[in-house]
Amino acid sequence: MTDEAIDIEREMTALGVAARSASAELAMCSTELRNSALRSAAMALRSSTQEILDANQTDMLAAKTRGLSPAMLDRLMLDDERIEAMASGLESIIELPDPVGRILAEWDRPNGLNIQRVAVPLGVIGIIYESRPNVTADAAALCLKSGNAVILRGGSESFNSSYAIYECMREGLESTGIDANCIQMVPTRDRAAVGFLLSSMAEWVDVVVPRGGKNLIKRVQDEARIPVIGHLEGICHVYLHASADPSIARDVVLNAKMRRTGICGAAETVLVDADVAEQLLPDVARALMEAGCEIRGDDKVTALVEDAIPATEEDWSTEYLDAIVSIKVVENIEAAIAHIATYGSGHTESIIASDPAAAEKFLRCVDSAIVLHNASTQFADGGEFGMGAEIGIATGRVHARGPVGAEQLTSYKYVVRGTGQVRP
Amino acid sequence: MTDEAIDIEREMTALGVAARSASAELAMCSTELRNSALRSAAMALRSSTQEILDANQTDMLAAKTRGLSPAMLDRLMLDDERIEAMASGLESIIELPDPVGRILAEWDRPNGLNIQRVAVPLGVIGIIYESRPNVTADAAALCLKSGNAVILRGGSESFNSSYAIYECMREGLESTGIDANCIQMVPTRDRAAVGFLLSSMAEWVDVVVPRGGKNLIKRVQDEARIPVIGHLEGICHVYLHASADPSIARDVVLNAKMRRTGICGAAETVLVDADVAEQLLPDVARALMEAGCEIRGDDKVTALVEDAIPATEEDWSTEYLDAIVSIKVVENIEAAIAHIATYGSGHTESIIASDPAAAEKFLRCVDSAIVLHNASTQFADGGEFGMGAEIGIATGRVHARGPVGAEQLTSYKYVVRGTGQVRP
Repeated sequence: MTDEAIDIEREMTALGVAARSASAELAMCSTELRNSALRSAAMALRSSTQEILDANQTDMLAAKTRGLSPAMLDRLMLDDERIEAMASGLESIIELPDPVGRILAEWDRPNGLNIQRVAVPLGVIGIIYESRPNVTADAAALCLKSGNAVILRGGSESFNSSYAIYECMREGLESTGIDANCIQMVPTRDRAAVGFLLSSMAEWVDVVVPRGGKNLIKRVQDEARIPVIGHLEGICHVYLHASADPSIARDVVLNAKMRRTGICGAAETVLVDADVAEQLLPDVARALMEAGCEIRGDDKVTALVEDAIPATEEDWSTEYLDAIVSIKVVENIEAAIAHIATYGSGHTESIIASDPAAAEKFLRCVDSAIVLHNASTQFADGGEFGMGAEIGIATGRVHARGPVGAEQLTSYKYVVRGTGQVRP
Repeated sequence: MTDEAIDIEREMTALGVAARSASAELAMCSTELRNSALRSAAMALRSSTQEILDANQTDMLAAKTRGLSPAMLDRLMLDDERIEAMASGLESIIELPDPVGRILAEWDRPNGLNIQRVAVPLGVIGIIYESRPNVTADAAALCLKSGNAVILRGGSESFNSSYAIYECMREGLESTGIDANCIQMVPTRDRAAVGFLLSSMAEWVDVVVPRGGKNLIKRVQDEARIPVIGHLEGICHVYLHASADPSIARDVVLNAKMRRTGICGAAETVLVDADVAEQLLPDVARALMEAGCEIRGDDKVTALVEDAIPATEEDWSTEYLDAIVSIKVVENIEAAIAHIATYGSGHTESIIASDPAAAEKFLRCVDSAIVLHNASTQFADGGEFGMGAEIGIATGRVHARGPVGAEQLTSYKYVVRGTGQVRP
């Protein structure tokens, strides 16, 4: 580990070359070998708990000195429990089916050619993340599971913690004889390294996954000359249709907004049909306010809900990630769909309705990665989808959309078997 | 149509805004409506044959004046037969199954949520192509079939021909009441329009597909701030394993190289195992030379094949697209795989072998979009794969790899149906 000034171009290029070479080897490793590297990494995390805690202590002291917010400090902090959670997280990734080698489709041609579409690793993945050091283990493990080499670049405030975790992951590879360069970490806090990775490493890095706040993701999207899988923000909506069951409406809104306010699948705006606003809103608003949520509403909402603050135009496109919700009364389902098309971020939206035709219309017409009927937007999560661990939620339309798990970190190739066929 | 100086930024932005809006409407159109627009476009092509020929005459005269090569002139030239082929091409696209709305996966969660992964259009596709005016019809039709709005940008030498074809495609949309802006064409030859499209239209264009020579594709890859689906070049290999059947070896090499030399799936390099070089090469070389192919070989090849020219290092990474082949003797299958990894372009490679273990090793270890056993590389084609029309062969690893047909022009979304579930 070094934190001194380095020759960015030389060091990063070396990382890229080593990753590309390691990835070719990893793509040929058996399922069992990749899983056993994960098992060894989990053991290394447990047996290195003290070293990781010491490294984290260094980061925490520096962070406190720099005056980081309590929320940031909490994201950075590691303890025995969080380290154990990382280790058992790796073990749950072992349990996932191998995404590599799946036969995605197979057919025969009239000339006798047999064609298979077979899942293969993407190659080399760059992961750029922020303060949570556990991403080091989670992201590296998902990449390893899916046969991809990875170049990790964590937040500078968690540099020491991430590095200690990274060493455990390398130990897992080394103990099973897999090229340890399948997992590498950018060995400097210098932000120029990220710039170089994004702009100049297309030859060695196949895809970049940013994990973090809007500023990080925007920078990655703006600078990257490499395909990016990620999401900019989650401005998620719950729409209460005229046919909504009142208790489902209340429970889902409360959960979608308040279960955890800081995740991308948390609802930020509630839309409610004018016909039922008077009937539904007081109860919904009471539940939210009792849970500590601030309500910002349009004129109709402030007329119905005491304590609601008037919303401004900006509110409709704000991802609060906090105990604040914007509420708007809409004329009908078309207006709700139009509002989401205008202000949404294409992440996750839910309709609460008893009328199946209305539900199907919403599910069909709303163009988001995830659309739900009578369920909380907080289900927008790879684990909740049954996909196991995820590396994030993608809102782009190319390659992967929605939760990005091990399967989504694969590409495919066509394998064609013949008996001497030539093309006429 | 205008070919005068225009305000690029204003005009291109207007195209983008119109495409985005049209695409939202198109995504909701039924299969039947999209197919009937294609049927009307085919009729319009047939009934406008004379107008298209006139426009093509204008382009051909200008091209001759500018001294374009015979090959370029042939690519540009339209006649009754080629126009009829475009029209019947549209009809064959009608016959393809609808790629939109397919349920790609479906499962239930223990909490009762039903999850579907459903294919949806990508959105807006930019197609940048060169001299062949028929791409205007083919590409627009594939985009329409897959529910995508398209912005076409043809080669400047085929501007008038492409515009005449484009008007027929619009006529198809108009006659069925679909927003005609689902198919738009950049209304200027100014190359700055391409620059603006690539660099500044990510908000309105979801993916760019370049179709043409290496220079075009390189420019697109270098400048694009939008995901690109395409291939840079096809340096395709045929590898003759020690267990190769001699007549399959000869027939496949001849077909892979000489059936058509100008397509990306044409073989450029033949690798042959040292053990069988003496046995196989004379016959293979004779067949190639009788067909008019020049052979460039390493020392062992020139020793075995009279008339073979010594190959230089550059030959191994050259896409001839011509009646020239490079041939190299390799020690064994590992050396063949290593040669392909070093010099190949990840497009299409074939092994000729009777030993199934060797074949499977090659199919597994060669990291190309298409790998074949005992079959010609010229099968690298969407039509030959049974996928119907294709927009090209992708060698990138993200989103689509191999032939890009209507299916590959879709994304997906998750549709989740519940009964009031909230996340614990």
